[in-house]
Amino acid sequence: MTSVTELLEPVEIDLQHLLSDLRSLIGAGHPILQAAAEHLFSAGGKKLRPGIVLLISKALSNNNDLSDRHKRLAQITEMIHTASLVHDDVVDNASTRRGVETVHSRFDHRVAVLSGDFLFAQASWHLANLNDLEVVKLLSRVIMDLAEGEIKQGLNRFSSNQTFSSYLQKSYCKTASLMANSCQAAGVLSAIPEDQLKCLHQFGKQLGLAFQVVDDILDFTGNDKQLGKPTSSDLASGYLTAPALYALEEHESLKVMINREFSNSGDLEKSLELIKDSQALSRSIKLAEKFAKESLEAISWLPESPCQNALSKLPDFVLSRLY
Amino acid sequence: MTSVTELLEPVEIDLQHLLSDLRSLIGAGHPILQAAAEHLFSAGGKKLRPGIVLLISKALSNNNDLSDRHKRLAQITEMIHTASLVHDDVVDNASTRRGVETVHSRFDHRVAVLSGDFLFAQASWHLANLNDLEVVKLLSRVIMDLAEGEIKQGLNRFSSNQTFSSYLQKSYCKTASLMANSCQAAGVLSAIPEDQLKCLHQFGKQLGLAFQVVDDILDFTGNDKQLGKPTSSDLASGYLTAPALYALEEHESLKVMINREFSNSGDLEKSLELIKDSQALSRSIKLAEKFAKESLEAISWLPESPCQNALSKLPDFVLSRLY
Repeated sequence: MTSVTELLEPVEIDLQHLLSDLRSLIGAGHPILQAAAEHLFSAGGKKLRPGIVLLISKALSNNNDLSDRHKRLAQITEMIHTASLVHDDVVDNASTRRGVETVHSRFDHRVAVLSGDFLFAQASWHLANLNDLEVVKLLSRVIMDLAEGEIKQGLNRFSSNQTFSSYLQKSYCKTASLMANSCQAAGVLSAIPEDQLKCLHQFGKQLGLAFQVVDDILDFTGNDKQLGKPTSSDLASGYLTAPALYALEEHESLKVMINREFSNSGDLEKSLELIKDSQALSRSIKLAEKFAKESLEAISWLPESPCQNALSKLPDFVLSRLY
Repeated sequence: MTSVTELLEPVEIDLQHLLSDLRSLIGAGHPILQAAAEHLFSAGGKKLRPGIVLLISKALSNNNDLSDRHKRLAQITEMIHTASLVHDDVVDNASTRRGVETVHSRFDHRVAVLSGDFLFAQASWHLANLNDLEVVKLLSRVIMDLAEGEIKQGLNRFSSNQTFSSYLQKSYCKTASLMANSCQAAGVLSAIPEDQLKCLHQFGKQLGLAFQVVDDILDFTGNDKQLGKPTSSDLASGYLTAPALYALEEHESLKVMINREFSNSGDLEKSLELIKDSQALSRSIKLAEKFAKESLEAISWLPESPCQNALSKLPDFVLSRLY
């Protein structure tokens, strides 16, 4: 099984530079933020998102070189992602993320608001200075989708009659939009044709959706150490993801327990059993596989190279977290 | 004495439309945010910032018409301003602003983070879709300045050796940047020559600085009902503004009390007396008058019109809050 470190090997040094640039950019002259920046950009994070942008950028380059603008785009992607995580953790009142204390619990929610705003602000400034209106539009769409996704997620808590499509929309907003639009933006900076831009968008979108469905499955099966949150915390918080929504089609009694927000003793445990005894998890796995397959197909036109090879292994890597 | 309502009379109807557009834009389909939006955009706020953008836009138009893009710019300006207020109130832990409960105290800090993010996101999306890279740069600079200003302000709390110029920089970031850059952006959308763009920037910048110094004076003299915060709350919180910094040049003992963060009984009261008995307030008034004068001079080239007339009364209006 390929590890994420192996996958990102063709851009490993670029990623290291990116992280050290981010640390000095955010920390410089602001002691309050410096600690938060160290906390955010030093932990052994996978940095999959900027990694994908760098892989695509190199895969599109004739001489395996990265332009400064492509590097900056990868950085902006990570800034936006991190800013939204920091603020989401405040909104969701989360105390840990992937086993690491959140900024608002390590410091306080005021530092979290400030450092998130500072990251968003830096991102939007550097974005404007990439001097490409199309890229500005793609990434500002991401910022809007992230905010919309967080709102959608909050609105649909414990709402057992939400449609599967609203779940997918939420997943697009919170996870897939950033991947889809940043992949496309890398293509825009490389000035590739419109139909290839659409393919890059599709690659990132389906990869992001696969990633989210896998995350949602792991919340129930809990065999991913990386996740670092208590099993079934999504369900307990009222966030209904693919497994719960599929199970609702089979078990009317699940609806009752969700509607009363698991207020009767034993509700949560019974609900988990219903979900595990249904077709829900196997159907969710099939869904993730479908997204992964579509993601792979979307980049079949990329010329062979180490970076193209890494990109084509990504969809399978996302699924491999299930096994 | 002219009131702000009279001053904004030439754009009154446009401002009403703008506010109702903002309410429906923010509230649509998001019950959580709807209440926050009503709270933010319904109260009898003065809406001076979008008002100035609209006045300039009309003053630059041959037929007194507003283009959709100018209207959108005014809206974006108000979104950015409001988003930053909502988040600043979380960071500063403020419970009221101008006599009205803040979002995070009326609702909670999670709704405040979410609604601020949503406003920033909407602003950056609409900004990109104005399709003008120069305008995107000007307003993304504002977003960065607002975040920097909030950080600078936090860093300099109780720091009695801060320079007057760092105070002015902070004031530029937190207040004047938005006015300077949004005035200039209105000019960019009207395609006026570069030297006039610089003048509009200067007009907004000096007006914003005058506005901030007046605010800072009123924090000591407290004769403005609009301010709606306890007198000398800035000093008590350790924010050293023009009056305190001038007084520090006269009274060594003030430094001692600030350095110990007014921890001895009677420190705050004694400090206030020192400031009021010094040249600090009259020097601060002179400074505000200088900024107001420079602001007025910067738009001497605008052709006569009702909007030009209103703009030329603005600097005096800002000062009039002192009398």
